[in-house]
Amino acid sequence: MVSIPDLGAPIDAIDNQDFTIKVKKNRIWAGNVFHSAEFFFRPKSVAIVGASETGGGGWAREIYRNLEYAGFPTEVYLINPRREELWGQKVYPDFASLPKPVDLALTIVPAQYIPDVLAEGVENGLKAALIYAARFGEGGDEAGARRGDTIRSLCEDSGLVVCGPNCMGAMSFPRNLLFYPATRIRGLPTGPVGVVFQSGGTFMFWLQRAAERGLGFSYAVSSGNELNLDLADYINFLVEDDDTKMIACMVEGVRRPEAFMEAARQALAAEKPIVMLKVGRSDLGKKAAESHTGALASDDAVLQAVCRKYGVVRCYSLDEMIDQCAVLNQRRWPRGRRIAMAGFSGGGKGLYLDYSNDEGAVQALLSDNTIAQIEPYIDPGLSGQSPIDCGAGIASRQADFSTVCSLMAADPSVDIVTMQGQLPTLRDDPSDPSIYANVVDATDKPVIAHVRVSQNMTEAGREFLAAAKMAFVQGLPQTVRTMQGLCLYAEALRRGVEPLPEATGKKTDLEGDAFDKLLRDRNLPPPAGTFAATAEAASMAATDIGFPVVLKIVSPQASHKTEVGGVALNLGDRVAVVAAADDMAARLHAVDPAARIDGYLVQEMVSGTEVILGVRKDPQFGAFMVVGLGGVLVEAMRDISFRMLPVNEADGREMLDELRGKAVLGAFRGSPARDVDALVKAIRSLSDLYMDYRLHLADLEVNPLIVGAAGEGVWAVDVRPVWR
Amino acid sequence: MVSIPDLGAPIDAIDNQDFTIKVKKNRIWAGNVFHSAEFFFRPKSVAIVGASETGGGGWAREIYRNLEYAGFPTEVYLINPRREELWGQKVYPDFASLPKPVDLALTIVPAQYIPDVLAEGVENGLKAALIYAARFGEGGDEAGARRGDTIRSLCEDSGLVVCGPNCMGAMSFPRNLLFYPATRIRGLPTGPVGVVFQSGGTFMFWLQRAAERGLGFSYAVSSGNELNLDLADYINFLVEDDDTKMIACMVEGVRRPEAFMEAARQALAAEKPIVMLKVGRSDLGKKAAESHTGALASDDAVLQAVCRKYGVVRCYSLDEMIDQCAVLNQRRWPRGRRIAMAGFSGGGKGLYLDYSNDEGAVQALLSDNTIAQIEPYIDPGLSGQSPIDCGAGIASRQADFSTVCSLMAADPSVDIVTMQGQLPTLRDDPSDPSIYANVVDATDKPVIAHVRVSQNMTEAGREFLAAAKMAFVQGLPQTVRTMQGLCLYAEALRRGVEPLPEATGKKTDLEGDAFDKLLRDRNLPPPAGTFAATAEAASMAATDIGFPVVLKIVSPQASHKTEVGGVALNLGDRVAVVAAADDMAARLHAVDPAARIDGYLVQEMVSGTEVILGVRKDPQFGAFMVVGLGGVLVEAMRDISFRMLPVNEADGREMLDELRGKAVLGAFRGSPARDVDALVKAIRSLSDLYMDYRLHLADLEVNPLIVGAAGEGVWAVDVRPVWR
Repeated sequence: MVSIPDLGAPIDAIDNQDFTIKVKKNRIWAGNVFHSAEFFFRPKSVAIVGASETGGGGWAREIYRNLEYAGFPTEVYLINPRREELWGQKVYPDFASLPKPVDLALTIVPAQYIPDVLAEGVENGLKAALIYAARFGEGGDEAGARRGDTIRSLCEDSGLVVCGPNCMGAMSFPRNLLFYPATRIRGLPTGPVGVVFQSGGTFMFWLQRAAERGLGFSYAVSSGNELNLDLADYINFLVEDDDTKMIACMVEGVRRPEAFMEAARQALAAEKPIVMLKVGRSDLGKKAAESHTGALASDDAVLQAVCRKYGVVRCYSLDEMIDQCAVLNQRRWPRGRRIAMAGFSGGGKGLYLDYSNDEGAVQALLSDNTIAQIEPYIDPGLSGQSPIDCGAGIASRQADFSTVCSLMAADPSVDIVTMQGQLPTLRDDPSDPSIYANVVDATDKPVIAHVRVSQNMTEAGREFLAAAKMAFVQGLPQTVRTMQGLCLYAEALRRGVEPLPEATGKKTDLEGDAFDKLLRDRNLPPPAGTFAATAEAASMAATDIGFPVVLKIVSPQASHKTEVGGVALNLGDRVAVVAAADDMAARLHAVDPAARIDGYLVQEMVSGTEVILGVRKDPQFGAFMVVGLGGVLVEAMRDISFRMLPVNEADGREMLDELRGKAVLGAFRGSPARDVDALVKAIRSLSDLYMDYRLHLADLEVNPLIVGAAGEGVWAVDVRPVWR
Repeated sequence: MVSIPDLGAPIDAIDNQDFTIKVKKNRIWAGNVFHSAEFFFRPKSVAIVGASETGGGGWAREIYRNLEYAGFPTEVYLINPRREELWGQKVYPDFASLPKPVDLALTIVPAQYIPDVLAEGVENGLKAALIYAARFGEGGDEAGARRGDTIRSLCEDSGLVVCGPNCMGAMSFPRNLLFYPATRIRGLPTGPVGVVFQSGGTFMFWLQRAAERGLGFSYAVSSGNELNLDLADYINFLVEDDDTKMIACMVEGVRRPEAFMEAARQALAAEKPIVMLKVGRSDLGKKAAESHTGALASDDAVLQAVCRKYGVVRCYSLDEMIDQCAVLNQRRWPRGRRIAMAGFSGGGKGLYLDYSNDEGAVQALLSDNTIAQIEPYIDPGLSGQSPIDCGAGIASRQADFSTVCSLMAADPSVDIVTMQGQLPTLRDDPSDPSIYANVVDATDKPVIAHVRVSQNMTEAGREFLAAAKMAFVQGLPQTVRTMQGLCLYAEALRRGVEPLPEATGKKTDLEGDAFDKLLRDRNLPPPAGTFAATAEAASMAATDIGFPVVLKIVSPQASHKTEVGGVALNLGDRVAVVAAADDMAARLHAVDPAARIDGYLVQEMVSGTEVILGVRKDPQFGAFMVVGLGGVLVEAMRDISFRMLPVNEADGREMLDELRGKAVLGAFRGSPARDVDALVKAIRSLSDLYMDYRLHLADLEVNPLIVGAAGEGVWAVDVRPVWR
């Protein structure tokens, strides 16, 4: 994996999460945020710089041969100062000598020559360049980093756009432009999938396999180190391109988070699903654990929440990304998550249920009427309730199987249908694709086929696939995961991305008693409590509140109170309060003799289940809601749920449902069920509060929020705002 | 999925985990535990009962054609009372009419005729039968259940062995016997893999795909509902068979746990790995949660612990089972878990690291010397430390890549090598398998190849595979998982399965003060404490022990003390003790007015991290060690680790390492690191104690065990034995 330098974004900043993006001046922009990849993907003319039989390990030759093979779909010029003719064509010494300016330079020269080559190109009207070579600072070498800076400046000053460095090129399939240094890329089919891979070699193998599996491509790029054009730019280009219907990307790092989110937002609005395989989940996780804001979360959880908001479908492996694209390619969006599965394998049904359980997939509950209609078609003694094992007999009565699946699809409680399938590998296979196509034609719901064991893909299989009008997902775990991906995408589509409300909250509301009132109004009531300047005053305040009480030290040196012994629980009388106050003062001074003690907080002692609730501002992606259970131990287990703001009550319930330890919120080991409604309201209210006051706040954490028994409500015991 | 009735085991019981197995009398046994599958898999003669052109949907014909195709490798007779000749052969009305007794009947008649057919067969010397039909009680119908009982009695009385019912037959590849009703099973290669699938249809597709992937088979059976011959019997047969080198099974339920464990033990001793895909993980998990012993664990965790002990390698999917067999087929057992990976893809390296992190795979740390030797062969600027991205250049210098991998293999800190690969699909592909074979020849360590994206398998690929001498695993997640499977198998091989020590402990040691002393001697010291009959006596005892103390009610009606409010912590003086005792008595009587209060336990108040430690006796598989962290919340999260007994200190450390919340045992949020050494000693000691006293104990739970700071030791606060 190539390490990714922080290249600095051409966007200055985003304010208050509302993505009003200010952009540096640049000659070629798409909208306000993106570099245009127009001249890169659709050049009217190209120059191969470094053209020679052996240049770049033969890459120049391979690229030329690919252009020749396609009948030169664009004007091609060769540049090499040490040659005059090559492959029967005139070779020019430089850009200045060309009969006219070219749009795109394919540079197959060593890294050290690239800055001069591009500078000379720009002087002579060059608009885009593709840099195959590596060593532009990605490994940390100084000379390389200087070269990278030079090119970055050149881009900024001139509007040149650059793909790479350290990549293997790109393909514009509708235009037959194969800027890729290998002949085996020829013959890949044109189709709806736009592809962005940071990795160049994996890219080619993935394209080949995806094509074998029946997918075709619009534009595909190995983006390398993304010194200039980056993931966000490519997505933007593909969203605007009419031939592209979905976007598959393998991503090592998101260089411009705001621009990426904006591109993803546009893709969602255009109903073009983005499918993403993220490399480096584990490394990022490690980095995150070391940083302060990441103490509870890995960066990957942040990215996951971003993907959820914008409907970016994450995949686990390269193969799964192919299956996910195939499933999305039907372009039917389920109205809910309820899946009806039919097959003719008891073993397959059992495995399917296991994987469904692993992934949290929902089984549709068919109506009695549907079940009654289905049962005549399946083997006796088996149930017509999904998932259905129709019995081995139906394998030889495929029309019956098709009928069963159509009946399931017609049930209003079904959102997706998956039917067992197997693709033919030989042309004389008697299988009939209309068994599948009939189900697709009989419904407007998504229908897919699941293959239990992966199989070879042949021309016969691809023809069958097209006639069957549905994806044949290879393997049952992949089937369940890709259907879940489809559901998540459809949910994001339904939700859409609303513009954020105005931030109207005033700073003064966040101070002193006003803040207490605000919290109370926003469903985050603090326990009854008051501030006392001395131990004696605290003991008197405790009498007013009623025993037992909680005492907390107030000191700028004691921001993590439990760690300095600055909290005492369950104090039963005035003597205990004074003793506890003196103790905690002594303990703090033992650690920090200069610590300033402002006084003590005395609070009513409330009891219930501890929850952590917070809004944290990720430095890259913005503000997130974090919900976790119960303090220290859960922190050790990282049992938390993440969402981008804003969060509504349905989101809040989903977040709680994601917690592994959620059982403690129900009736559990003698404790009655917790007030989950109040907790959900608190989550939504914290989100609203943060949105209103986001001009003033960075983080806002409630730790703990105590959740009482059902009907008792919640108490925001400790609320810690971090100012912007 | 077919539901599995409890068929009752032919083994009466096992005592005290030492697997001295008492067996019912039966004419044909293999050893003391197993039905012999000899006449089933290696019959000298077979009869097709129900022979007709259309019988059983043409299954009789298909099976006959398969035998004919193979040149009748065994004597074949046809039985059908309504015919005299078929397929040019004489048809007999019954077994009595046959010229001589046959070994095996292939019964293709409806379920209701089966009992009479088999009875007549047994009278005439029949030794084994294969029942394809379903409806022998597996769906719960009464007539079927009666038929099942009849056949079970027939087997028990006569020694007849039966495969099925509800299956699709079997294949004996070394003998060319294809008792499977489909012609497409022809041409599967003979080889080292024995196969047992409960599912009949999945079975065939798996065999076909596994064959495409280069595997061959010895004996394969779709075992169906296992009315008589079961998984344990088949494994036993395959362990004793010289042609079989490993065993692949897809299992819905383990019918005879003790026999299965004995078969698995023998397989481990014979160095024949068992690879298992378990169906119904989720259903079993649900069942387990409902039962008392399973309150903390799913049955699947129990099975997982069984598999770990006996080196049974579990797989996640049908495809992964093929990869796992391919990896084990090299028959090289790694000496440790340290994996060295080399490839020429930055993206592949990143993904590999992610999957390694997911699966807990260990990266080998190459020596400086090895790194220095490797670096001249890889692209400049890249690191020679595993995992290695050698750079795109090496793809065209394959001999260099081979050298890099051989250098890694020679490093003493490496246990397994995995090298990036791609199989040719066409015969004219110039790829050279010696690149791979040379690495295999240069080391005795396991070497595998990883393919990033799955690919089509062709004859050219299989030839390459054989010449390369290693498995080409399809996909990176599968690569990491199958290497982990290989490591687990090798570890189980190294450990072996020792006979259990004698159980010498006397019951009297487990009573009263003797038990306290025993716990103290066995590294499970209780906190200082004493029993007091009354509240007043308790307050005096507390003065002796020293304040603060813990008070616990002792009553037969208060076995779960916290749930009835029967525990009070941190009592600071005598008044508090008396008040607490009176309170808890009142609370108990409020719930159960007839509750008998024997008195109170007064204990020193110890503080530290709560751990649950226990031995639980699973009704099927025997005694297990359970280790979990911290009480109620962890119970809600099911953060526990399981091992079969006995457990040593290394196992104990592994168990702690499996806990998601293990961070709380280290220095965490202001608390110093816990006394993990004492905790590990306590785990091992609890195992030893249970083994010594297992004649008297069912369960033995310590909850909580309080783990003090490093050097402070542990306190077994509440030890609850359940007697046998």
